[in-house]
Amino acid sequence: MSKNKIFACIVSFIVLFLGTSTNLFAIQTADANPAVLQLQQYDRAIHIMAMLLIGFGFLMVFVKKYGRSALTATFLLVAVALPLYMGVKSLNIFESRSEIEQLILAEFGAASLLIAAGAILGRIKIYQYIILGLLFIPFYILNELVVVNDYFHFVGKVADTGGSIVIHAFGALFGIAAAVSLTSKPQMDIPVESDETSDRYSVLGSMVLWVFWPSFCAALVPIDAIPHTVVNVFLALCGSTVATYIASVMLRGKVSIADMANAALAGGVGIGATCDYASHPAALIIGVVAGVISTVGFAVLQNKEQSFHKIVDTCGVSNLHGLPGIFGGLAAILVIDGLDASAQIKGIIITALLAIVAGLLTGKVISLFGKTEEAAYKDVDIKEAEIFA
Amino acid sequence: MSKNKIFACIVSFIVLFLGTSTNLFAIQTADANPAVLQLQQYDRAIHIMAMLLIGFGFLMVFVKKYGRSALTATFLLVAVALPLYMGVKSLNIFESRSEIEQLILAEFGAASLLIAAGAILGRIKIYQYIILGLLFIPFYILNELVVVNDYFHFVGKVADTGGSIVIHAFGALFGIAAAVSLTSKPQMDIPVESDETSDRYSVLGSMVLWVFWPSFCAALVPIDAIPHTVVNVFLALCGSTVATYIASVMLRGKVSIADMANAALAGGVGIGATCDYASHPAALIIGVVAGVISTVGFAVLQNKEQSFHKIVDTCGVSNLHGLPGIFGGLAAILVIDGLDASAQIKGIIITALLAIVAGLLTGKVISLFGKTEEAAYKDVDIKEAEIFA
Amino acid sequence: MSKNKIFACIVSFIVLFLGTSTNLFAIQTADANPAVLQLQQYDRAIHIMAMLLIGFGFLMVFVKKYGRSALTATFLLVAVALPLYMGVKSLNIFESRSEIEQLILAEFGAASLLIAAGAILGRIKIYQYIILGLLFIPFYILNELVVVNDYFHFVGKVADTGGSIVIHAFGALFGIAAAVSLTSKPQMDIPVESDETSDRYSVLGSMVLWVFWPSFCAALVPIDAIPHTVVNVFLALCGSTVATYIASVMLRGKVSIADMANAALAGGVGIGATCDYASHPAALIIGVVAGVISTVGFAVLQNKEQSFHKIVDTCGVSNLHGLPGIFGGLAAILVIDGLDASAQIKGIIITALLAIVAGLLTGKVISLFGKTEEAAYKDVDIKEAEIFA
Repeated sequence: MSKNKIFACIVSFIVLFLGTSTNLFAIQTADANPAVLQLQQYDRAIHIMAMLLIGFGFLMVFVKKYGRSALTATFLLVAVALPLYMGVKSLNIFESRSEIEQLILAEFGAASLLIAAGAILGRIKIYQYIILGLLFIPFYILNELVVVNDYFHFVGKVADTGGSIVIHAFGALFGIAAAVSLTSKPQMDIPVESDETSDRYSVLGSMVLWVFWPSFCAALVPIDAIPHTVVNVFLALCGSTVATYIASVMLRGKVSIADMANAALAGGVGIGATCDYASHPAALIIGVVAGVISTVGFAVLQNKEQSFHKIVDTCGVSNLHGLPGIFGGLAAILVIDGLDASAQIKGIIITALLAIVAGLLTGKVISLFGKTEEAAYKDVDIKEAEIFA
Repeated sequence: MSKNKIFACIVSFIVLFLGTSTNLFAIQTADANPAVLQLQQYDRAIHIMAMLLIGFGFLMVFVKKYGRSALTATFLLVAVALPLYMGVKSLNIFESRSEIEQLILAEFGAASLLIAAGAILGRIKIYQYIILGLLFIPFYILNELVVVNDYFHFVGKVADTGGSIVIHAFGALFGIAAAVSLTSKPQMDIPVESDETSDRYSVLGSMVLWVFWPSFCAALVPIDAIPHTVVNVFLALCGSTVATYIASVMLRGKVSIADMANAALAGGVGIGATCDYASHPAALIIGVVAGVISTVGFAVLQNKEQSFHKIVDTCGVSNLHGLPGIFGGLAAILVIDGLDASAQIKGIIITALLAIVAGLLTGKVISLFGKTEEAAYKDVDIKEAEIFA
Repeated sequence: MSKNKIFACIVSFIVLFLGTSTNLFAIQTADANPAVLQLQQYDRAIHIMAMLLIGFGFLMVFVKKYGRSALTATFLLVAVALPLYMGVKSLNIFESRSEIEQLILAEFGAASLLIAAGAILGRIKIYQYIILGLLFIPFYILNELVVVNDYFHFVGKVADTGGSIVIHAFGALFGIAAAVSLTSKPQMDIPVESDETSDRYSVLGSMVLWVFWPSFCAALVPIDAIPHTVVNVFLALCGSTVATYIASVMLRGKVSIADMANAALAGGVGIGATCDYASHPAALIIGVVAGVISTVGFAVLQNKEQSFHKIVDTCGVSNLHGLPGIFGGLAAILVIDGLDASAQIKGIIITALLAIVAGLLTGKVISLFGKTEEAAYKDVDIKEAEIFA
């Protein structure tokens, strides 16, 4: 009964919105000082950094006995990815970019890396995250070169402003593929447990991601398109948040806080490809659909996938970043007028193939450095903090 | 003895400040590119979003067994309020605003909604927060139309840049009125308990609110007045923070962390109406007075009000947002030269009446959907997080 | 074996970076609207405020039984420092600054104060932090006048854009000197304990500091130099983060989360003096060295210093802010062409002397107000939060 009421509320709320907000606002045009633009990008670069360390970091703290390891891993992954990406990209073969733009592109790479790490979280030793970072970034840059920059004139123009495909789907598929070599049989049966405190830390990370997500999607968008992009991203996030709640209650009987912490963000993942183009109602709908897909992933597919592929995806990145990312990439074909659909599909397929091959390879290499077996999901590599004894 | 010393310190500190800072700085004037202005507003919009989700969300986590529910509720309230507000405001009867300004106005509405929700927190089921949001926002818009936009040419010009009256007092009074139907007899005796961990989460939320409060007050302020506004807000917050500590120690013997987490923010509430106009010393004094009022509310009035009105105000929003908001609205009459005092008082009275009527109505409607009785303040609607079993 | 692998990875990563990134980007020049500049400074001022309250505040929550006291102390220290600094600086003897610049300078003073407080954290009563703030700020302003403004034409031009010397080293040395009178014999044997939850809070504070550190260093930097400065600061932080992990594992066998939470930030401290001048590879190297110095401090020197000087430095500020700060100040002599080395050294020595004398004096004065003995590091001054009973 209460479910029906919720459903009635949400339908009326969407109808109200759709009925009134089409062509809500005209995009403001303006010409701005280039220094101002770069400084504006700086603010967004800082917001993204908050997402990387505090957002992704604390989202992964949901594993109750692995929180300090997850935070240390986050520190190391970011600290390896940024200089490595910027160093490689400073080679002469790449297009020239301003310092802040290079920083933002490096942050995008670090975000994708953190997503990949989420799939194998807790099943590798801490120093192995450094190896993961060193191997991931070159593959990521290769995919960026092929799909985003179309360096080999092979793909065509792919719509992916906010990285649904090349950041989210790439990271998720890479991580899942790496998990093939990095999931041992005994680990299949070790539960990944959270508690009330680790859940609340996890929601903190989730909220940091939610709040700053528009800066992620709009980071490199031209100044005139930023306001529209930002509102689209927030609408998509609102849509996925409400949809996650409803889907979670429908599928599980009660809302799962893990669904809220994760699937509520799926709107941000899904809107990535079309964030600067979609109308506001389209953004809201993309968010709702992405939220439903992601919640179905967490509530229904996760265990099936796990027993089918014989892997564990610790943070469920396939559900938060994989499926919604691919959905977002495909949604662009419907949403963007005159989009080259074949380029878009080619971009998705190449990204997926490259991510899977690179992930399998990387997982294999990392597994050569040893495996954690029954010690999984525990802070075994952390020395107890004791400043004084 | 130690109290006297504290008192001596604080007096000398205020005297020093007052003696030296009058006419401290001239306000800088400048004309700026409109696109730049809109992008600047964007940064403030993000700051406000951090306040809504992380700030209000974690401030409410002080209820130790209801933390995950409070965070889920925060997610839902924000995700319902933003699209609903923007959808309604896109109807042709309202003034035209840029996308970012619409977003900021929607965030103001969400803030007021979160305040209202704080009064009944823990005593409704999670899906009922969605109903609360759907009912609150139209009333909020109505009050905005009448008092802020003076749509019916009835009120006159009200000074309320940072929302002391139409955001804080409206939300608090709405929530308290809603609590009339949403406080059952058995619930009067259920303690609202916190523990060390929930307290620290709560201070996290409080600090997020403190830090970004200037962006809230200055969100729609003209570019020239922003620096002065920002410094005023920080001074008011400094004043209320120190005053809260002293008042809390005086009234309770020791400082209460709940007082610090809440009443320290009262300066931000109180300065709202005059943030862009007050001199720096006036801002500091408004902050000190607001902090004292709020602490007295938490330490002395709360229990009396509760037994008198037979309601529970879970987060004490009457003490943090109600009293300091009305104080801030009235302080404008003293602080702003040439202010139409009758308009200001009319604005406060209309806001209060509308909030109370709307709150009583909304509380009644929500109570039709069922009540939580002895299950209050517990995460009973949350399914335990278990990504894998 | 795994250590050697880590080492090989890090070396190859540095070599790769050094080989490719020299003269990575030209600094962009541009002329911007002064109002825009001031608004940009505003965003950085907010970021710094997040560092002060949330960053420093939660970093100090690692003391497991003193978390709420540490957060209350942070609130009070900031709330006393800002108005006091701005009040004193509004006297006519100081240079004229815009409101936002005054705010930023006040925040720098509050940062230095929080560093000083870290050394004596948990061993004074809460109201004594107010006294600490009232005494610290005048000394800080005096040092700023002598060393930064060279008011007496005695020092010469000191390179210290991001405050390695006058903020970090000054605060650390002041705090250590104050600890001489504020460490009793019995307190030498009371352990400063953390637990899993307090550790995670501590990393939250650390990450907030990490993320916003570029805004701290670039706060008052001319607009053209901001992008280069920002990238330098992030590179230094990446360097110290990876170096801290490796050094911690080498020195302790396993990584200490306290090392990660603290020494990972040493790159930000060390790059302060040269953040707007150093090349990117130099910034990375300064970060690595600062991280190693700081980790050696925490892992090796801390206990020795403690037994030698008969003081307790609760947060290890000598290791995070003292040594890396002085290192950063000296590194400027190597890094900046044409720097007046004698002025730089004079600046460091005067800062150190003034900090030590002022700290000894302040510690003595505070100790007159009473001491906490065996009650150290416990929330004894906090009334248990009970909004309702």
